Amino acid sequence: MIKIGIVGGTGYTGVELVRLLARHPEASLRVITSRAQAGTPVAGLFPSLRGSVELDFSAPTIDAYADCDLVFFATPNGTAMTQAEALLAAGIRVIDLAADFRLRHVPTWEQWYGTAHACPALVEDAVYGLPELNRDSIRNARLVANPGCYPTSVILALLPLLKHGLIEPKSIVADCKSGVSGAGRKAELGTAFGEVTESVKAYGVSGHRHLPEIREVLQSVDAAADLVFVPHLMPMIRGIHATVYADALGDGAVLQSTYESFYRDEPFVDVMPAGSHPETRSVRGANTVRIAAHHLPQANKFIVLAVEDNLVKGAAGQAIQNMNLMFGLDETLGLEISGMIP
Amino acid sequence: MIKIGIVGGTGYTGVELVRLLARHPEASLRVITSRAQAGTPVAGLFPSLRGSVELDFSAPTIDAYADCDLVFFATPNGTAMTQAEALLAAGIRVIDLAADFRLRHVPTWEQWYGTAHACPALVEDAVYGLPELNRDSIRNARLVANPGCYPTSVILALLPLLKHGLIEPKSIVADCKSGVSGAGRKAELGTAFGEVTESVKAYGVSGHRHLPEIREVLQSVDAAADLVFVPHLMPMIRGIHATVYADALGDGAVLQSTYESFYRDEPFVDVMPAGSHPETRSVRGANTVRIAAHHLPQANKFIVLAVEDNLVKGAAGQAIQNMNLMFGLDETLGLEISGMIP
Amino acid sequence: MIKIGIVGGTGYTGVELVRLLARHPEASLRVITSRAQAGTPVAGLFPSLRGSVELDFSAPTIDAYADCDLVFFATPNGTAMTQAEALLAAGIRVIDLAADFRLRHVPTWEQWYGTAHACPALVEDAVYGLPELNRDSIRNARLVANPGCYPTSVILALLPLLKHGLIEPKSIVADCKSGVSGAGRKAELGTAFGEVTESVKAYGVSGHRHLPEIREVLQSVDAAADLVFVPHLMPMIRGIHATVYADALGDGAVLQSTYESFYRDEPFVDVMPAGSHPETRSVRGANTVRIAAHHLPQANKFIVLAVEDNLVKGAAGQAIQNMNLMFGLDETLGLEISGMIP
Amino acid sequence: MIKIGIVGGTGYTGVELVRLLARHPEASLRVITSRAQAGTPVAGLFPSLRGSVELDFSAPTIDAYADCDLVFFATPNGTAMTQAEALLAAGIRVIDLAADFRLRHVPTWEQWYGTAHACPALVEDAVYGLPELNRDSIRNARLVANPGCYPTSVILALLPLLKHGLIEPKSIVADCKSGVSGAGRKAELGTAFGEVTESVKAYGVSGHRHLPEIREVLQSVDAAADLVFVPHLMPMIRGIHATVYADALGDGAVLQSTYESFYRDEPFVDVMPAGSHPETRSVRGANTVRIAAHHLPQANKFIVLAVEDNLVKGAAGQAIQNMNLMFGLDETLGLEISGMIP
Repeated sequence: MIKIGIVGGTGYTGVELVRLLARHPEASLRVITSRAQAGTPVAGLFPSLRGSVELDFSAPTIDAYADCDLVFFATPNGTAMTQAEALLAAGIRVIDLAADFRLRHVPTWEQWYGTAHACPALVEDAVYGLPELNRDSIRNARLVANPGCYPTSVILALLPLLKHGLIEPKSIVADCKSGVSGAGRKAELGTAFGEVTESVKAYGVSGHRHLPEIREVLQSVDAAADLVFVPHLMPMIRGIHATVYADALGDGAVLQSTYESFYRDEPFVDVMPAGSHPETRSVRGANTVRIAAHHLPQANKFIVLAVEDNLVKGAAGQAIQNMNLMFGLDETLGLEISGMIP
Repeated sequence: MIKIGIVGGTGYTGVELVRLLARHPEASLRVITSRAQAGTPVAGLFPSLRGSVELDFSAPTIDAYADCDLVFFATPNGTAMTQAEALLAAGIRVIDLAADFRLRHVPTWEQWYGTAHACPALVEDAVYGLPELNRDSIRNARLVANPGCYPTSVILALLPLLKHGLIEPKSIVADCKSGVSGAGRKAELGTAFGEVTESVKAYGVSGHRHLPEIREVLQSVDAAADLVFVPHLMPMIRGIHATVYADALGDGAVLQSTYESFYRDEPFVDVMPAGSHPETRSVRGANTVRIAAHHLPQANKFIVLAVEDNLVKGAAGQAIQNMNLMFGLDETLGLEISGMIP
Repeated sequence: MIKIGIVGGTGYTGVELVRLLARHPEASLRVITSRAQAGTPVAGLFPSLRGSVELDFSAPTIDAYADCDLVFFATPNGTAMTQAEALLAAGIRVIDLAADFRLRHVPTWEQWYGTAHACPALVEDAVYGLPELNRDSIRNARLVANPGCYPTSVILALLPLLKHGLIEPKSIVADCKSGVSGAGRKAELGTAFGEVTESVKAYGVSGHRHLPEIREVLQSVDAAADLVFVPHLMPMIRGIHATVYADALGDGAVLQSTYESFYRDEPFVDVMPAGSHPETRSVRGANTVRIAAHHLPQANKFIVLAVEDNLVKGAAGQAIQNMNLMFGLDETLGLEISGMIP
Repeated sequence: MIKIGIVGGTGYTGVELVRLLARHPEASLRVITSRAQAGTPVAGLFPSLRGSVELDFSAPTIDAYADCDLVFFATPNGTAMTQAEALLAAGIRVIDLAADFRLRHVPTWEQWYGTAHACPALVEDAVYGLPELNRDSIRNARLVANPGCYPTSVILALLPLLKHGLIEPKSIVADCKSGVSGAGRKAELGTAFGEVTESVKAYGVSGHRHLPEIREVLQSVDAAADLVFVPHLMPMIRGIHATVYADALGDGAVLQSTYESFYRDEPFVDVMPAGSHPETRSVRGANTVRIAAHHLPQANKFIVLAVEDNLVKGAAGQAIQNMNLMFGLDETLGLEISGMIP
């Protein structure tokens, strides 16, 4: 059994981690911390967990994790970078679900996150936790940077095209639609029910923090790659739909077979038949990214549709997938879940 | 492994059964029938099941189930009663998720369902599949009538009060709120998105088919019991919230302890602390009924709040709970699921 | 033209007032105050008002309203009672959309609102602004207490029954369902999209501030009246559905005709045909309460269904209806709006 | 008063027309037809119209419109083309809210709509009813083809760029998001609540009927223009959000001023301040298209965000705007409505 600590268990990413780990056959939840809720039963804050989680929230001290093999940070950006070093020094492995270790280029990180990085020395050590790209490195990683929700969908949509040189690498437009849970569990007017239901809007057109993350990963595959990225807020809880446009090189004849062979052995990437339109609900609660690739011959564009549950493959599920790899378990353990329809 | 057939796998109850059974460690799905979809892959109609269900829909002939130990009817009312006899004769056990065998009094059934009962001889044989009431009979049943979604919540809300004589048995008002999935998966204007979202309405005030079902079960506990039942349609997919009012006999001092002791050993009934207000989302996807009991001393009323997922404890999950009992398995097998929040 | 001030124009009630008054042919918006937004264009905060409202928010000083004939308080409870006296002394009439002047019995107000009343002397002067009950007094009122959203629907549902002695006056149960906008426009976790969508819950079972308000008004009609009131939160923006149960006196033969004749001349109460089930969406954006009365002979209960838009007839629209009466205008002026379907 | 007939008043476009025309000071509704509902009161089918519309649906015969000055077709595609000729011959003007007369190139129409055009001779006579493009022709038109919902938003987003030559005309990508009401009021599984709520999907990637419509209009402005168009279904009733991408020619310095001057005198196009992100709810129920133009210098892209209510500016409201022009009225008459927030 892997002994597990969760830092910051009161957000949506945190409660999803707890929900999934509570049923994981090789995971043992030892400590869930929350500064604000220390002493409260976890199932008192989240009655959905009554009967499956007996822990109380504890105060977030380093000592709290002494007994753990692995600590997940389900905290806001800027927390893990102040604590990871001490945990690693104590022999505890770390998965950060926030952004502290996602960018290898520290000045870029500091520019987009508006603060000095507290632990730049560890950045090189961190592995970007996208198993479909970095599986082998993740197995041996001490510190995993769990990818952002948008980047997971956009990168997986583009990997086959970039790796096979099928697109003009600077022509990418990623128009992404996300449910509201991506913004976290907060008392904020901007995500109040009365403000976001029955409405759609773009945000961050001039620049969103997931842009440099996607760009850096794509450029690690093809140095010439670049993209335009526009996120939109949708009136639903869970789900991301990435609609990715790029200029096709070649005639599209190998498009479908390229995707199918590229992802043939991936347990959590599902390539749909040609002509399909995936729905975000088909992956609700599941760790799957479901992809459909289209070719518009007249415009000579490829259009790739990718859907995921932002809290699962876009956050907690992918973190557990990484945990499974890091601890030598079957990669799918605890994640064999179908999307919940309706 | 229990070999399983599902009649009518294209509705919401059917797909939920498939989703849950696909992960059940002792269940083996052998045949899923659909007249309209025969030949189509199940996962073609429900892409959420891609990768977890390999079956095609087959035509609904009795022969199709020859290999099965158990057949679930996830069909409209009126189907199971025409086929159950042949299946039972072949030694196959049956759980009907529709209403054909829920009422013991056949004339009442015929009045509310507007047709002659095709198989009245079997009615007496059928066991009403509410484990909290009929656990022992279910273990030995050949034919189980799985309860309606509203009745499950209302009956479980009332059982402790009626069994302990704590209320005036004719004073019950059950004001119930249900998500839209309770109406099934159909091409109907009345459940179109544009008709039901952002709106609430009552329906069936003059009489709903779940009323005689609730009444008959309550009267089996207390012959004097009767109720007013008003269902309402809510703009959400899943979830029932029953708000049950009754005139208190006595002073309410034992209310909380009565509920707690009554349901202490029930794996799927969760009595919340006094003063609680359960949310339907806390049981989304879970087989739990979550209950809070209140006393209004000034009005001398008890108010019991009960929430369930109408597709799980109100349908497919309860059917699997019954299956577990019928086949001597741990009652919770395949159902250890927490509610999905958010 | 009536010169109008609005205190607290940044909430949902406030913006609805502004939206409706901007098109009112006899209203001239002069000043809209907000402590937090002083200096911001109203249409900057609410882009929906671009092109129809040119004002900036101003600081909430008494002087700001010097030019006004009428001031609406669209503020939290506890504000109007500190400022009404000065306005009235300056000859400015006042409509409070909050609760400060709704209860005539000051100790009850102080008990439920948890604070001393700042201006008890004015309470007797205030008129409860339900035109269907107090039309003549409203015409001459200097100070109108605009009713709460739940009370408007429950009281209008019950008036014909109580006035005609058709029910047992202590037997009333009001099970009410409200959209989220009733909780106001606030940065609160409890009304975040991720917390309330796809879910239903009761709240305030042990006591809600609208209970003493309803009780006091009902008792002004029938001193013996009392009720149980349970509010529920629905996953929608606008709309209240009141389901009101009471024990019938007599046989119900006159039920429909009683409602029809009682409300025959009321422009904003619509009695539906017998057997109807009103939908909240049918009054979305409209100042109408739509009512259907049912009789269950077997249980000898009357069940009255009443729907309203909590922000219109339950708040801003009713306030304008009161304004029209106070200033001798046609009661329906600016309010001739049909519900927006879909 | 303009005497008005509506063919097909039972759909969402039809009921919205009725709602808006019922309050229009110069419109007199004379006849609303529906084959299926002939004899039913309009307000019986749509209780929201109780008290404001007294008509019954009548059978759709040509004689029914004899008394009318203007007939709106709120029918499925293929109806108006069979009846317009007779109406025009009788001196009755026609506005078709469906697609029969939107494309000037009849073979293209026949290819996309899969049938022979019943009345090609009238196509040349028809005016494409986008006032911002064709105001003068609309004034004198006998037959107006009311634009599609997606085309209205995409064309208005692009007109300033194309007319001023600010973009590479073949580089356009229009990623559009629509509420469910755009699919009409029908008993269809695809738009059932349980199928579309809490989910997002693209559809028609390989080709949607609004593509040739947008293309033809854009090419009438710049013959070289072409675009990729991908529509998406959003879990909300009303609203379209068009996100339009194009390669910038020049440096973007004139972008904001170009939009502001281009639309300065347009009553129903609102150009927001630079850097804005319009929300669809800001135009809920309003006849406004709200636009924000962005420049991404690094990628050298212009991104234009445009929102509309698909049932108002995208259908019924724009039809009334056209009516006002055709009959010499103030263009804004009956349409001075702000968006309904929340």
